Amino acid sequence: MSKVSDNAVKFVVKMGEKGMKYLIGVDLGGTNLKVALLDLKGNIREKVSVLTKEGKQAVLRQIVETVEGLRKKAKVKKSAILGLGMGTPGLVDSIRGIVRGFTNVKGWRNVGLKEYIEKNMKFPAYVDNDVNLMALGELLCGAGRGMKNMVCLTLGTGVGGGIIIQGELYRGSTLSAGEIGHIPVNADGPRCGCGSYGCLERYVGNAYIVDKAVKAIAGGRRSLIKKLAGGDLTTITPRIISQAARQGDGLAKEIWEETGRYIGIALSGVVNFLNPEMIVIGGGVAQAGKILFEPIRKTVKERAMRIPAGKVKIVPAKLGEDAGLIGAGMLVKINR
Amino acid sequence: MSKVSDNAVKFVVKMGEKGMKYLIGVDLGGTNLKVALLDLKGNIREKVSVLTKEGKQAVLRQIVETVEGLRKKAKVKKSAILGLGMGTPGLVDSIRGIVRGFTNVKGWRNVGLKEYIEKNMKFPAYVDNDVNLMALGELLCGAGRGMKNMVCLTLGTGVGGGIIIQGELYRGSTLSAGEIGHIPVNADGPRCGCGSYGCLERYVGNAYIVDKAVKAIAGGRRSLIKKLAGGDLTTITPRIISQAARQGDGLAKEIWEETGRYIGIALSGVVNFLNPEMIVIGGGVAQAGKILFEPIRKTVKERAMRIPAGKVKIVPAKLGEDAGLIGAGMLVKINR
Repeated sequence: MSKVSDNAVKFVVKMGEKGMKYLIGVDLGGTNLKVALLDLKGNIREKVSVLTKEGKQAVLRQIVETVEGLRKKAKVKKSAILGLGMGTPGLVDSIRGIVRGFTNVKGWRNVGLKEYIEKNMKFPAYVDNDVNLMALGELLCGAGRGMKNMVCLTLGTGVGGGIIIQGELYRGSTLSAGEIGHIPVNADGPRCGCGSYGCLERYVGNAYIVDKAVKAIAGGRRSLIKKLAGGDLTTITPRIISQAARQGDGLAKEIWEETGRYIGIALSGVVNFLNPEMIVIGGGVAQAGKILFEPIRKTVKERAMRIPAGKVKIVPAKLGEDAGLIGAGMLVKINR
Repeated sequence: MSKVSDNAVKFVVKMGEKGMKYLIGVDLGGTNLKVALLDLKGNIREKVSVLTKEGKQAVLRQIVETVEGLRKKAKVKKSAILGLGMGTPGLVDSIRGIVRGFTNVKGWRNVGLKEYIEKNMKFPAYVDNDVNLMALGELLCGAGRGMKNMVCLTLGTGVGGGIIIQGELYRGSTLSAGEIGHIPVNADGPRCGCGSYGCLERYVGNAYIVDKAVKAIAGGRRSLIKKLAGGDLTTITPRIISQAARQGDGLAKEIWEETGRYIGIALSGVVNFLNPEMIVIGGGVAQAGKILFEPIRKTVKERAMRIPAGKVKIVPAKLGEDAGLIGAGMLVKINR
C-alpha cells in the first residue's frame, strides 16, 4: 500500500548530494501515515503514504520502518538527517513530545512519541498537533510567508485552528489553543459534539454541511447533488456539493453561501479580538473555492471593525494536503 | 477641582528621597485627567484627579501643568523621573505615540501626544490604549502577576479587552487587538453600535443592563431597583442594580445572572481559542461581585473545553480604578 507521488520521483536522482542536510516530516493520521524527506527550505524531495496500522506498538514500529525505508530509497545517510518532526490530530504535549490522546484512535493515551523515535532512530524528534503544523507550514513555506500574526483555520470533519503570534506558533497555557471550531456563534444554538451549544463546527463541520443537503433533498428540493451522488443521499460529501455548485446548482450554492456566512461571523470575532494580518483557510472543504471565500470575506468586511477588517487578508492555504508534512519538517528546523 | 486621595497624602513625607527614581502615569479620560507619581514597583506615591478641559491645546497644556504641579508638590526633581506613560480610550498608535481618535471627544484626531510631552517636558513619553494599560497594570502589579497568557476584560459603557501573550502586551497587526466586546454571541442578534449584530457588548454594556431593568419595571415587574432609583427609572445605573441584588431583589439577580451568562458564553470561545491562564475582569460593572462572577465561571466551566477550562482562572481586577494609572507608569518601565 505504499505509494510515492510522481512529483517526488523526479527528485530521486538528486538525492544523497554531498553535504546536503535533510528533515523528516511525519503526518500520522488515523487512516494514513505519511512520511516525507524535505530539504531545509521545506521542499518535499521524496514522500510516501501508507495505511496506518492498528495498535500502538505496531504503529510505532511502522513509523520507524517507513522513515528508514524512505531514507534508504533516497540514498540519504543517517548523519544527513537533522531530525524528525511529527504531527498528530488531538491533544499533544509539544514540550515533552507526548501524544495525550489521538482523535478517533483507541489505545493512544500519553504515548511518548519523541522518546520512542529518539531512542530508536538516534536523531532529535519533535511532536505537535497536526493543525499547528499546518499553520507552521503555511507560515514558513506557504500563504503566510513573512506574516507576524496569523490564524489558520482547517475545515473538515472537525473545524480546527492554529495561531501564529509574532511569527511564532502560539500554543496557549495548556498547549490547546486554536480551537476556532468551538467558538460559539449562537448562544442558544444546537448542541455541539464538544458538549457546548452553537459552536462554529456545529454549522460548518463536514457532517453538518452534508446534512443540509440531505434534509433539503429528502424534503423534496430538486438538486444536482442527488444526481452527482448517484441517487444515494448517504454518499453525499462536501466535494459533491462543491461540484454541484460549480455547475450552478441552486441548493449547493445556498449551502456554501450559508457555510461561508457562519465562518465569516466567527472570523469577525477573531478579527476584532486577535487582529491578525492574515487568516489562512485549508482542509477539504476549503477546496470549494470562490463560492466559499466570497461570503466569508463579505461577512467579515460587513461585521468586523473597520480598521482590523481593512488589514486582514483571508486566503486559501497554499500547501494543500502537504501542509502538515511540510510543517512537521519545519518543526525540526525551528527547534534547532 | 483637584483632589488628592488620602491614600497618597500619607506618602508625601517620604517623597523626594535621594537616589529614588519615579514614573509618571497619566490616565486621560473624556471626563477626568488623572496623574500619578509612582515608584518603580508601581506603588502610587502621589496622585491627582482633575476635570479634563475642553479643546485639544487646552488639554495638552493641562497635562503638562498637572504633571508639573504633582512633581513639585512631591518635591521630586525632574532628573528623578524616568518617563511618562499615558493611556487614552480609543485607537492609539502606541509605536509612534499618536492618539488616532479619542472615544467621545471631538477634535482628537492624530494627536502626537508622545512628541508633545517629550518636547515640553524633556523626558521620554509612551502612549497606549487605556484598556491595554489596565491589562499591563494587572499583569505586573495586580491580579495577573507572573501570568504568561492572560486576557483582561473591562465592563462599562463599552466592553473592552487587553491581551497578554508570553508575558507581554499583545497589540495585533493594526494595534487594535482585544475588542472582546465585539465578539458575536448571536449570529443574528440585535444590531450593535459597531455596525455588526449580536456582539457581547450589545448584551452586557451598561446601557443594555440598565435597559433590561427599565423595561421589566415599566412592564409592571415589582423591584427594589425602582425604590433605590428614587422612583425615577431614568436614574437607574448598574450600581443600583448591584445594590438591589445584594439586598435579594429577584429582578436584579436575574439581570446579573443573564449578564454573567453572556459574558461566560463569549469567554468560553476565548478560552477555547486563546487558551489563557487567567481572565481578569474589571470596570464598574465587575463590582457586582460574586453575583456576576458565579454565572460567568459556571458558564465557562459548562461550555468551554475541559482542559483549557480546567486551567483558566477567572478573577476580578485587583487594582480597581487605579489599574490604568499603574499600567501607564509600568509602560515607562517596560520600555526602558
